Amino acid sequence: MSDISTMAAAAKIASRKMAVLDKDLKNNALKQISEALTASADRIFEANREDVRIATEQSLETPLLKRLKFDEKKLKEVTDGITSLISLEEPVGKTLLHTTLDDGLELYRVTSPIGVIGVIFESRPDALVQIASLCLKSSNAVFLKGGREAEKTNKVLAEIIYNSGVSAGLPEGWLHLITTREDVNAMLSLDKYIDLLIPRGSNAFVQYIMSNTLIPVMGHADGVCHTYVSDDCDKDLARKVIIDAKTQYVSVCNATETLLLDESLKDSFLPEIAAALRDAGVEIHGDSSVASILGCPEADEWHHEYLDYKISIKLVSGIDEAIDHINTYGSGHTDAIITTSEEKAEKFMDSVDSGSVLVNCSTRFADGFRYGFGAEVGISTSKLHARGPVGLEGLVSYKYKLYGNGHIVADYSSGNKNFKHIRRNV
Amino acid sequence: MSDISTMAAAAKIASRKMAVLDKDLKNNALKQISEALTASADRIFEANREDVRIATEQSLETPLLKRLKFDEKKLKEVTDGITSLISLEEPVGKTLLHTTLDDGLELYRVTSPIGVIGVIFESRPDALVQIASLCLKSSNAVFLKGGREAEKTNKVLAEIIYNSGVSAGLPEGWLHLITTREDVNAMLSLDKYIDLLIPRGSNAFVQYIMSNTLIPVMGHADGVCHTYVSDDCDKDLARKVIIDAKTQYVSVCNATETLLLDESLKDSFLPEIAAALRDAGVEIHGDSSVASILGCPEADEWHHEYLDYKISIKLVSGIDEAIDHINTYGSGHTDAIITTSEEKAEKFMDSVDSGSVLVNCSTRFADGFRYGFGAEVGISTSKLHARGPVGLEGLVSYKYKLYGNGHIVADYSSGNKNFKHIRRNV
Repeated sequence: MSDISTMAAAAKIASRKMAVLDKDLKNNALKQISEALTASADRIFEANREDVRIATEQSLETPLLKRLKFDEKKLKEVTDGITSLISLEEPVGKTLLHTTLDDGLELYRVTSPIGVIGVIFESRPDALVQIASLCLKSSNAVFLKGGREAEKTNKVLAEIIYNSGVSAGLPEGWLHLITTREDVNAMLSLDKYIDLLIPRGSNAFVQYIMSNTLIPVMGHADGVCHTYVSDDCDKDLARKVIIDAKTQYVSVCNATETLLLDESLKDSFLPEIAAALRDAGVEIHGDSSVASILGCPEADEWHHEYLDYKISIKLVSGIDEAIDHINTYGSGHTDAIITTSEEKAEKFMDSVDSGSVLVNCSTRFADGFRYGFGAEVGISTSKLHARGPVGLEGLVSYKYKLYGNGHIVADYSSGNKNFKHIRRNV
Repeated sequence: MSDISTMAAAAKIASRKMAVLDKDLKNNALKQISEALTASADRIFEANREDVRIATEQSLETPLLKRLKFDEKKLKEVTDGITSLISLEEPVGKTLLHTTLDDGLELYRVTSPIGVIGVIFESRPDALVQIASLCLKSSNAVFLKGGREAEKTNKVLAEIIYNSGVSAGLPEGWLHLITTREDVNAMLSLDKYIDLLIPRGSNAFVQYIMSNTLIPVMGHADGVCHTYVSDDCDKDLARKVIIDAKTQYVSVCNATETLLLDESLKDSFLPEIAAALRDAGVEIHGDSSVASILGCPEADEWHHEYLDYKISIKLVSGIDEAIDHINTYGSGHTDAIITTSEEKAEKFMDSVDSGSVLVNCSTRFADGFRYGFGAEVGISTSKLHARGPVGLEGLVSYKYKLYGNGHIVADYSSGNKNFKHIRRNV
């Protein structure tokens, strides 16, 4: 317990030094890290083979084993990721607002790092590299907790990244790797030192983190995403988009889990889309009408994140019921409408209370890379701070800088002077 | 308990309707509210006289009695406030980012309301009017808890505001007033319905709220603000600014509580500034050197928010110790440096981890009105969401709106199509 607390205190001190690092130093550190990872490839692969061997003995499931594997291809991906991160705009020190309060009294709102960020991620060791480099680029110190299955790989990766970072001028204590569940629990109480937690993982796990800490949490517990099809839709377009939204990659948070159809479509479109979904290997769970029309099982609840070749289908009386259903049973993640009516599209997008609202395209687009952010920190369903797919801007805060020349408030409260409040272009 | 939960559920439903209100309807509702308050002046004053009578009988302290009083002057202030709020730019629906992802696939980041906001404030009934109107302008539903001393005044004000709002087209349930401490405790567990809490009040009270809820909290527990005087300072400027920062209004969060002086100033400036502070009625608490030089009591701790004619003075070895001291003992609120060195000013502003960092001016400037935000929601010491003085933008979130025309992700992952990611001016 006290160990983690000591590490966190050290990270806090390091974070103050990270805050003033020059962008060239940071980009050079990223370059050094990338080169050190490539140079240490054999050591990393060896540690990873050991992790994979143990996981195989313990009969880890195949998808997890696949995620655990760190080979030439994964190494190339993470070093390419670092190269592209180096080319991204410097996220710290950007002026967001400039106002002349009065002659010689200049106010700036400037981006600044958050401080110490705790990231808890699953089995993929490549996530460690990605997260560490994102935190470095945004001048934050970082606490990392990876999956137990990847322990040996993570240890080697963290050591290489930390050491080459320090050699390149990053402060001691800028990165810490923790390994046990007890350490995670200890971390949850360190709101004095840790400014933000980013948990990635299962619904239950993220929910556990969110419910057991006073540290702000960025992320999402679940992605119960909807596609609603309005009676005026283009049916070919609807079919194409729904198949993509459900089946293009089923195990991700932005895949559509519930299909809402206008009830007027129950004869003209429901059989057709059901056949297309079944052809794609999707099992359908319907409301009672859908179940009797299609001869499929009834859905037992509407807040279901399948992450699988399964979908819930419900008939709704129109856009209002669709919006209510989504706001009641959704998770505020990503929801789409298929319609030819601009008016309905706007109503849906304004009324559905989710991070991403889409018209006539696949929910699978809701992603930092596809949105053009260059790097993705995660997807947030919170409405405070960053929402939706989060790029580097989710890892920065801002501060106000006010430059004066002996200005005092008494002059303004007495009426001797008046504020000018001239907004400047930035 | 269940009562508050029912009210909160109703507020959530109302918040969905608030989200799509037209700006003219909202501004007209604000106008109607302002007129109804003026028309009901006698009823408000009568309720307030009763509150004041009871508070006087219970021997409430004079400053609190003064804050409790709601008379012609206060009424004029709040209706003027509403008039100026009407003229502010519409905070909802502003496009923050526009990117063409590909031909016909357009992404927008657009401001949206937060949802249901819970505000807990002290004895001032004018705060109720101000908060309710800010939430209305930003399309949020609101839960209000005022001070028990102002119960009768708040009840009348809330009733007038709620009813004239509903008459003007706001949804039922857009505003709720709660009155007891038990209700506040019930509210703290309603993270399902309430999206943001804004507590205003004493350090201990805000700390209590922050430690007992999973709802995000915006605000500050304390304001231990510092002014650091570098050895190269202009001494006349330093004296003028320090006197303002300490004495212009002592009971507010942005008043300077600790003065840090370069130790080289102990003969040349310490006696002079001590005399000026004492002339202004300020009691000095020093570190051991300061105490022996000035013959004043020693400060017993450095995280002291006096909110009074008292100040702590400490000698530091230079800018590094000053920065460390502030980052260790400060509250991340507002801190200033007095220096003629641009280099030192920049170092201080980049390294001090506070919402507002100032050079050569009074800490008292850190305030939403002085910063030109038109309206002030509060001052936040959190680094997530809004930081420093918070204007209307602290009451909004954003969402992504993506407009497509049958676009599917499979086309991009297969390489059939490539993203263009063209950033557009907004």
